[in-house]
Amino acid sequence: MIVLGIDPGTAVTGYGVVKGERSLPPVLIECGIIRTRPRDSLALRLQEIHAGVVELIARHRPDALAVEDVFYARNVRTTVVLGHARGVILLAGATARLDIAEYPPAEIKKAVVGNGAATKEQVQFMVTRLLRLKSPPQPADASDGVAAALAHIMGAAVRTLSSEAEMLLGASPRGRA
Amino acid sequence: MIVLGIDPGTAVTGYGVVKGERSLPPVLIECGIIRTRPRDSLALRLQEIHAGVVELIARHRPDALAVEDVFYARNVRTTVVLGHARGVILLAGATARLDIAEYPPAEIKKAVVGNGAATKEQVQFMVTRLLRLKSPPQPADASDGVAAALAHIMGAAVRTLSSEAEMLLGASPRGRA
Repeated sequence: MIVLGIDPGTAVTGYGVVKGERSLPPVLIECGIIRTRPRDSLALRLQEIHAGVVELIARHRPDALAVEDVFYARNVRTTVVLGHARGVILLAGATARLDIAEYPPAEIKKAVVGNGAATKEQVQFMVTRLLRLKSPPQPADASDGVAAALAHIMGAAVRTLSSEAEMLLGASPRGRA
Repeated sequence: MIVLGIDPGTAVTGYGVVKGERSLPPVLIECGIIRTRPRDSLALRLQEIHAGVVELIARHRPDALAVEDVFYARNVRTTVVLGHARGVILLAGATARLDIAEYPPAEIKKAVVGNGAATKEQVQFMVTRLLRLKSPPQPADASDGVAAALAHIMGAAVRTLSSEAEMLLGASPRGRA
């Protein structure tokens, strides 16, 4: 399973493409950022973010898109503008018929670090360790996109394990029928 | 000049296509709504809104897109979801290289009724009158899209008049040079 993880932003959108295979450690395929120019109009910046995500999907053909949920900033305007960016990212995923998952920041931290209130440094440390990298993903903004992809893969692993356990134990509602 | 006016919403997006010609009253070409299913995922609903706007642009080939700005609802979540819808609408306009204008609700009311605090009924009344219709645009949700288009056309008329006046009077900085 290949997952494209995205941390949306109007100025900088971080992304990570991670491959997860059964009983093998996850592998980082690519990470980076899509940067837009502050001088450009919002519509043009959205067009650039959308084109960037469309290009990543075409190149890596991921199975799923994992998008970090909106962070409710103190400044409502910032949060709303972020919603615009998420809109065009979700659109790119829906058009490519990807499996789409949205994760609140705390859920991503919980999945990667085991603690929903983990610091940025703790997330970077665990991302580096889980992917067996020598240093944290660069640029730093890409890290949150990688973490979203990892959270999705680790959640999928848990889902697979628990459904296998259910089958073995005959404990699922379907198994008992 | 043909203007596509849009009042974004995740459930119902109202639109109006209005033609404005110099010294002629504006003409309503089409109005309506794009409705999405509450049961569908946000990504799918965004895809439907985007496809609807792309189709309208292809059919009417407007010169400009006038989009109502976000209304800051008490519920921040509602406002943020609305931002997603606006994102895919602005994207459709940018991709078609339209002139894009965003108007806060009060500015649309001010342009159409002459009062930024006008009621929905007052806006409908003036939209009906300005377009010489027998009854307000139907469905009611379409009216705000039509109002956005009208606000853009009337603003453009004012801009043209004032630049003509400036030329005649030699009062603009350029005229004086």
